[in-house]
Amino acid sequence: MIATLNLAAPRPRPATLHPRMSIAASSAQDLITFIRDSIPLAHSMDLRLHSHDEEHLAVLAPLPPNINDKGCAFGGSLVSLMTLSGWGLVELELRRRGFDCDVFVAESNVHYLAPVWEDFLSEARLAHGASWEAFFHTLRTRGRARIEVACRVPGEQPDKPAATLSARFVAKRRD
Amino acid sequence: MIATLNLAAPRPRPATLHPRMSIAASSAQDLITFIRDSIPLAHSMDLRLHSHDEEHLAVLAPLPPNINDKGCAFGGSLVSLMTLSGWGLVELELRRRGFDCDVFVAESNVHYLAPVWEDFLSEARLAHGASWEAFFHTLRTRGRARIEVACRVPGEQPDKPAATLSARFVAKRRD
Repeated sequence: MIATLNLAAPRPRPATLHPRMSIAASSAQDLITFIRDSIPLAHSMDLRLHSHDEEHLAVLAPLPPNINDKGCAFGGSLVSLMTLSGWGLVELELRRRGFDCDVFVAESNVHYLAPVWEDFLSEARLAHGASWEAFFHTLRTRGRARIEVACRVPGEQPDKPAATLSARFVAKRRD
Repeated sequence: MIATLNLAAPRPRPATLHPRMSIAASSAQDLITFIRDSIPLAHSMDLRLHSHDEEHLAVLAPLPPNINDKGCAFGGSLVSLMTLSGWGLVELELRRRGFDCDVFVAESNVHYLAPVWEDFLSEARLAHGASWEAFFHTLRTRGRARIEVACRVPGEQPDKPAATLSARFVAKRRD
């Protein structure tokens, strides 16, 4: 009954019709469009696709609609963007493999490490130790599985993120 | 240099001019107005004051601008509202005691426990074991202090919240 970030997944395209990367790129833009159209706050944030491949999803948000009174990024925008990037990473991999699931965030740990003074992005990848294979094995056998995702908003220095989010996402098969 | 939820604190009113509760109630509404005016996303969420006293701050958000594609509350709205309620609790107590500080969220742990199908509120209180006295003692001696705050979005059943957030806020004196 947990359903805070559920988004309807359209039917995945048959994998035989397109090269894998084309499907991924197309689905990522489709997903961002869907999110913007169905979640008013994502539209208010002006959420956009930055980049996507099988290992990461990066989404970005311009600063002006996400600003706070100090002129830097509002914490709520940072955590929302990170959560959406993680959710999207899981959703896209499910689509790519032909699964029709509800995906929702169950828990997250957030660190705010430095102020963000310009447009910002969040990059999501599987957390260290997390595995798509284990996730899909459980999903196939139990109809439900969870996976840990690590998201970060890059900071001004390459190795020092401005914010991080570690989240557990849960997928439940609908089919 | 951490400043994701910094909000400028107007000069606190002299405590001798008004009864304590009047100051608190007035400041809480002033703060919500300030947040709505200076953080576009809080305005998009249609953030409102629910109630406030010396032990809690509750803010609410109507569902329509905070909805997801399923018709329940977007996770980003839930975590943003909880974070703002916690930030506001600390900010208001600082104002009430005449401190001029920057307050920012440094870390949070979020649990999404049940979907929210209607307008929702977040109630913030000090976390178990946290103490204003210890916080203000440290702030007076070091010019900087941190405090743990517990926020919750009530669920349909009285003792089962729909979401919880445990956050560490940091205050730094500006004066």
